[in-house]
Amino acid sequence: MPSIRRSPSVSDSTTSNARAGGTGGSKLNLSYAQSGVNLEEKDSFTESLGSLMRRTHGPRVIPNPGGFAGLFRLDYNEKLFARNYKQPVLVACADGVGTKLKLAIEIKKYDTLGIDLVAMNVNDMIVQGAEPLFFLDYIAVPKVDKALLNELMKGIVEGCKQSGCALLGGETAEMAGLYAPGDFDLAGFAVGVVDVARAVNPTRVEVGDVVLGLASAGVHSNGYSLVRKIVEAAGLDLHAPEPAAVDRPRRVTAAKASTGKRGGKAGKGANGSAREATLGETLLTPTRIYARSITKLLGSYKVKHVISGMAHITGSGMSGNLCRALHPKVDAVVRKSAWPVPAVFQFLQEKGGVSDEEMRRVFNMGIGYCVIVKPSFAESVAQQLRKLGEKVYVIGEIVKGKGEVREVE
Amino acid sequence: MPSIRRSPSVSDSTTSNARAGGTGGSKLNLSYAQSGVNLEEKDSFTESLGSLMRRTHGPRVIPNPGGFAGLFRLDYNEKLFARNYKQPVLVACADGVGTKLKLAIEIKKYDTLGIDLVAMNVNDMIVQGAEPLFFLDYIAVPKVDKALLNELMKGIVEGCKQSGCALLGGETAEMAGLYAPGDFDLAGFAVGVVDVARAVNPTRVEVGDVVLGLASAGVHSNGYSLVRKIVEAAGLDLHAPEPAAVDRPRRVTAAKASTGKRGGKAGKGANGSAREATLGETLLTPTRIYARSITKLLGSYKVKHVISGMAHITGSGMSGNLCRALHPKVDAVVRKSAWPVPAVFQFLQEKGGVSDEEMRRVFNMGIGYCVIVKPSFAESVAQQLRKLGEKVYVIGEIVKGKGEVREVE
Repeated sequence: MPSIRRSPSVSDSTTSNARAGGTGGSKLNLSYAQSGVNLEEKDSFTESLGSLMRRTHGPRVIPNPGGFAGLFRLDYNEKLFARNYKQPVLVACADGVGTKLKLAIEIKKYDTLGIDLVAMNVNDMIVQGAEPLFFLDYIAVPKVDKALLNELMKGIVEGCKQSGCALLGGETAEMAGLYAPGDFDLAGFAVGVVDVARAVNPTRVEVGDVVLGLASAGVHSNGYSLVRKIVEAAGLDLHAPEPAAVDRPRRVTAAKASTGKRGGKAGKGANGSAREATLGETLLTPTRIYARSITKLLGSYKVKHVISGMAHITGSGMSGNLCRALHPKVDAVVRKSAWPVPAVFQFLQEKGGVSDEEMRRVFNMGIGYCVIVKPSFAESVAQQLRKLGEKVYVIGEIVKGKGEVREVE
Repeated sequence: MPSIRRSPSVSDSTTSNARAGGTGGSKLNLSYAQSGVNLEEKDSFTESLGSLMRRTHGPRVIPNPGGFAGLFRLDYNEKLFARNYKQPVLVACADGVGTKLKLAIEIKKYDTLGIDLVAMNVNDMIVQGAEPLFFLDYIAVPKVDKALLNELMKGIVEGCKQSGCALLGGETAEMAGLYAPGDFDLAGFAVGVVDVARAVNPTRVEVGDVVLGLASAGVHSNGYSLVRKIVEAAGLDLHAPEPAAVDRPRRVTAAKASTGKRGGKAGKGANGSAREATLGETLLTPTRIYARSITKLLGSYKVKHVISGMAHITGSGMSGNLCRALHPKVDAVVRKSAWPVPAVFQFLQEKGGVSDEEMRRVFNMGIGYCVIVKPSFAESVAQQLRKLGEKVYVIGEIVKGKGEVREVE
């Protein structure tokens, strides 16, 4: 059984059984425990980690009990691997969740931030055509709080499962002087592999190629400094339901109530309807992970170069990110009307009085990932992505240009 | 030329040219710039990053301009690689520098923390017998401060060069609400490769094997909560020279001064001698990186299993770490008198009134890395490590036991 341990002693933790007994040279009598280390919580958290991490481990993860490093077999079933990767190239990236975590701290909801963390990393990586292999996390806390860490790990494990990554290791650092009580930070690193001949490459993009847009799940993990500024400046209540920020067809709760339906059921609101998401919960909707869909899509076009480019729409919006997939002789023309802008963006724009242009520079506006395809395959690729669970829109095309993205009506 | 970009937009940064112009639905008129993003500093830092990172890039790093992910060719010079790694296993780890960074913040010295960061990761990894391949960093700051970031990056690049790692990517996150002005956090992730047949494995350790200890450079990166507690409780001045904490033969500065030597040269103290390190500087001495020595050592014993185990002595000291290299039927007996305890530990112990036992549980006490070798090779391995620049002591041997470390006089 794989049993890679996360670095089992959290950073700067060292010793239990701290003892008195000076050296006689001083009146001070310090021990490590006095410097603020909370060992019981730590040990208990470390024990529960193993089983959580193993949920993400396939046969390529090699047991390494007692070790501080995770081991990942690159050529499990060597013949199969050799066929899949003639010239394997490792692809690695690092990212955090930014100030979305401050929002989570405000409403004390921590179980999906780990999904955001994995998403930000693997969505960046798959743009290269890479298959995600494994993930490592870094969590920094002022004091080990098992409940908080378990919620964070739950999200990380879920994100790893959604993207087909093994959670190979990580580090939990306890740094009382650096983080205020209740605060924490999260960072992640992902490693994947791609055959060099199949790596996505901007030079392949040609005039006439079609841009497909894959729907985002909401704000994802960028622009949260602005989100929080809007919440603060407009005096919004993160703990109250905010139907205007939600796309789902709104339940006519008042009408239901007037029919005399009895409310009061556990988990339901006073009107008898299922509890509506609070604004905070809506804003914390986890980032969509496109890894499985894209990996499957690429796997089905091994010979032909059907996909000429991809882009993960993060900070800087559509124009700031889609341009990374272009070479200097083409532009992408994107029709803004080609997809519906989710309610949450309309809500934020209205409450904050943010200009259209600024919204499009900061947020994904409903499209989280783009795939540039050869025109004759556009429909079949879109169909395939829909079967894989994505909402897909034909949002634009490639024209002669100078490496820019032009957003038109 | 390799030109892998570090994630070029720092986290949660999105837009310049923020513009006014509301949507009419609100009196607020917010833009991203108002939410605290400092773009000029950011762009200027991002530009300088490329050349810094390239200093660590060999021919296995593949150019990926515009991409957010770093690409590393696993089989550069395929035939050579195939000979070196029959069944390559990737080894990955994550670590931070812990509260050593708070000490750095106190004395505003940031240029060697990056060495600590790389060291904590690669020293963990080489214990598995792995050759370090690449590194990624995560830096979180309240506000982009180019001078600070450049100092941190300088250390990271130096650490990567010392360990033979390519700095393949990283993330700089600006999170004003999370970090106090002047604070920051640092985390790192390293990936290496080892042939599965050559991975170090605890079952190889046998009764009679010899334990070699490699000298540390000082406190390294563990136990700093206790270090800072001692500094605070004993009222020590981090900005004053503290010769008692330094091993180098002390210069008789007073005598020199009395010979009438003129002082006042730039970079020299009032007594005419080179400026002595302050206590803060001594405590910030960067962690020794054992990667090049150990990789070369392992490379020279490709066929024979001369090295039966290794340990990176971090938090929990000798007993807490050397035991990871043992299996449940052997003990390691370590003679505490076999190496000199550096002055910095004696100084901290005396000032803090810390017990001997506690010191040995928290700190490395002068040995930063252990190599367990077959007895007939002990002398030649020690000689080879000395030639590679290590200070090596024969500190113990393997006896029948139950997987424990016994520290004896």
